[in-house]
Amino acid sequence: MEELKNELKSDEQQEFSAQPQADVSQVVQQLTEAEGDEQADVFSDILTEAEPGTVALLLESLPLDERYERWQQIEPEERVDVLSLMRADPRLGIVKKMPDSELDLLFSQLSPEDLIDWSDSLPDSITDRALAQMGERQRKHFELYDQYDENEIGRYADHQMLVLNPDSTVAQGQRFFRRIDLDCNDHLFLVDINDKYIGTVRRYDLFKADVETLLSELIWADSRFISADSSLIEAAEAIEHSRELELPVVDDEGVLIGRMTLRLATILVREHYEAQLMATAGMDEHDDLFAPITVGARRRAVWLGINLMTAFLASATIGLFENVLSQVVALAVLMPIVASMGGIAGSQSLTLMIRGMAMGQISSGNVMSLLKNELGIGSLNGILWAIIIGMISGWWFNDTIMGIIIGCAILINMAVAAIAGVMVPMILQRFNQDAALSGSVILTTVTDVVGFFTFLGLATILYL
Amino acid sequence: MEELKNELKSDEQQEFSAQPQADVSQVVQQLTEAEGDEQADVFSDILTEAEPGTVALLLESLPLDERYERWQQIEPEERVDVLSLMRADPRLGIVKKMPDSELDLLFSQLSPEDLIDWSDSLPDSITDRALAQMGERQRKHFELYDQYDENEIGRYADHQMLVLNPDSTVAQGQRFFRRIDLDCNDHLFLVDINDKYIGTVRRYDLFKADVETLLSELIWADSRFISADSSLIEAAEAIEHSRELELPVVDDEGVLIGRMTLRLATILVREHYEAQLMATAGMDEHDDLFAPITVGARRRAVWLGINLMTAFLASATIGLFENVLSQVVALAVLMPIVASMGGIAGSQSLTLMIRGMAMGQISSGNVMSLLKNELGIGSLNGILWAIIIGMISGWWFNDTIMGIIIGCAILINMAVAAIAGVMVPMILQRFNQDAALSGSVILTTVTDVVGFFTFLGLATILYL
Repeated sequence: MEELKNELKSDEQQEFSAQPQADVSQVVQQLTEAEGDEQADVFSDILTEAEPGTVALLLESLPLDERYERWQQIEPEERVDVLSLMRADPRLGIVKKMPDSELDLLFSQLSPEDLIDWSDSLPDSITDRALAQMGERQRKHFELYDQYDENEIGRYADHQMLVLNPDSTVAQGQRFFRRIDLDCNDHLFLVDINDKYIGTVRRYDLFKADVETLLSELIWADSRFISADSSLIEAAEAIEHSRELELPVVDDEGVLIGRMTLRLATILVREHYEAQLMATAGMDEHDDLFAPITVGARRRAVWLGINLMTAFLASATIGLFENVLSQVVALAVLMPIVASMGGIAGSQSLTLMIRGMAMGQISSGNVMSLLKNELGIGSLNGILWAIIIGMISGWWFNDTIMGIIIGCAILINMAVAAIAGVMVPMILQRFNQDAALSGSVILTTVTDVVGFFTFLGLATILYL
Repeated sequence: MEELKNELKSDEQQEFSAQPQADVSQVVQQLTEAEGDEQADVFSDILTEAEPGTVALLLESLPLDERYERWQQIEPEERVDVLSLMRADPRLGIVKKMPDSELDLLFSQLSPEDLIDWSDSLPDSITDRALAQMGERQRKHFELYDQYDENEIGRYADHQMLVLNPDSTVAQGQRFFRRIDLDCNDHLFLVDINDKYIGTVRRYDLFKADVETLLSELIWADSRFISADSSLIEAAEAIEHSRELELPVVDDEGVLIGRMTLRLATILVREHYEAQLMATAGMDEHDDLFAPITVGARRRAVWLGINLMTAFLASATIGLFENVLSQVVALAVLMPIVASMGGIAGSQSLTLMIRGMAMGQISSGNVMSLLKNELGIGSLNGILWAIIIGMISGWWFNDTIMGIIIGCAILINMAVAAIAGVMVPMILQRFNQDAALSGSVILTTVTDVVGFFTFLGLATILYL
């Protein structure tokens, strides 16, 4: 045994030595710290080793001019894979910069599946250019997938899969698995002459069965499928909750159109959460880390504008009480505290709701229980912080009435915040709006307006 | 063919009919809307169909008392799987309620791997109770995994894998794959007599090779491994960027201790993003949707307290300018707008940074380019909104100076917000702090203080 080990060492060293998988952040560090021409060398070293997904992340982490220079170092046959794994905006940035001849070469290597994915963000003129590079059959495929809209899994289903008829033999099925090396593949899908999905045969069962057996006898009793019009996140969850690597995707007439894989699920889940994270600041998951300044400014301006309207609403609320403010200036000093505590408490309830909604755990059936729970938590914290803030404020301005006023305002605003934190996302969901995007703006508006109104309103009653 | 189809239909209908994978939100709706005894019936119907992951999500979506009632309907042999797939807090809630006899039965079915995962959140006394139910060998395993801390993949690696010596034959390898039905399994790992990892044999190569061949001849030239002390998210990304279903996890002496799978990656990625989402509101990914009110209130109180300190800091800033505020009450009306626009602009930069950091795309090498870009975007929007807000404010209070003051304050605050949005997360990262958790509090403090100070400071200079 010891001998063998040594033999292996000397024998295999040339052609094989196991390596740890590279860490993206280290490679980013190396690349971004290299300057000028040195960067080109570092990048070409990386290219010999790195997976396309890593290269995609690397390119995104470079400013636009450096990014395009490095892009040109990538071999033509690697380019489609790298671009497919980039976010939509950086991908579009590169495609727009490429000369027509390179673009045509790129598109000639593009599959209809890739183009579907890209076309969500490409201008129509570029999509048409890409279609022109495709053969008749590929164009047909593109149109087939293009029937489904951007939130339906039918659009993105993987079309490479093992399909046989139920009267094929186990030997034929085994040959398929031996010949074809697909990712996330351990099922064989059976279809009838009209391509309608009949059931699934597991590789595990297939390789234990007698080679003469018909596949129809091996159909897995637990065969499941995903409807082509399921949303992306539903499809991702279906495969995560099943314990399978792949599930067939079937259209509304029962025809097998593709498969959903665990690999695709990881990509969709990541995109989903990135979208939620970016939405909290009014941005988009496709946004480029290095957007051109004018493009970045224009996109963000919309969100700032919406926020400005809500800020003016808060100001208008304060404006109602100019009278008491001019007489008791301490009110102006303390009023941000009331708004801020309400905002934080509300965002805690809202975040809990958004997490639950992402997993499908919130429905009209449990919303009243949730409301009760959140209102309980909000009121308990409201009482606690009303007392603390009331005492500090009373002592600061040496004014007991001020302490009472701010305490009451805090308590009311935190209770309202809990209610709004639960109800705002529910109402948004009812109208098919994304709670992660607009939830926090609406919530902050509520807590600002209620906070300022109760605080200054109580002050008007008690001081004037 | 048509005949066969009909034959299949009548023949197979009893034992097989393909079904769509169930959608969690629909099941949640059904269950939560059912009242009283009816709910028990609905739940037992669901149990016959649903995967443990779905059952776990369902239980979490029920209020505590209903949740425990439904829990009792689950068969003892299903319980470990369901609990393992729940979030830590709801799981702990159920474990704490279970009578000792049931608990011992539960623990007797628990694997060391499950217990490692659970023990991160279980009180030591309960972990010890579970260990007491285990055999000597299992306890040893537990201690082995327990050497790694909660952020190292060595702790959670999957220990079920196919391992052989390099002098085994292809026939032996094929027999392994035929006999053992593992999830995410298409590699065979080769180790020497000291359990040191030598290399990987792919199933695809194995089933094409001659049965007499030695496995050492089939070692995959592209064999990669993950170090046991890699962080969870690094390990998840390694498997996502590789195009494999599994990668071996190897300790610092080269010993193969387990494997990382694509399945585990999907779970870790989801937990990572949930943690980030919850952190933005100062909460934890393990938090229960229905925490007991006192527990929920206590946990959230910490975050509210931190926020209160920053709010008082903002108030103290305003307090410096009581003099000008008492003379020009319009300042009190407009000042929230300055703070709010800065806060939103800063959170846009911060969110972009957090997304980039999650993917390892930000390093000291590209931070200056990012700063330049964000400052450009921030200034451009600063100029735009300074003009708009200045004009509206000047017109509202019929006071040109007021318009100029607020315009300047907006411009300065939005530029500062861009700088803070980039630098705050960089500094937090340097000190190994989570930017998603503390980033927004620090940022808001900066934009509040700078916003109030510039606005009221300029007013003091120009009005007094």
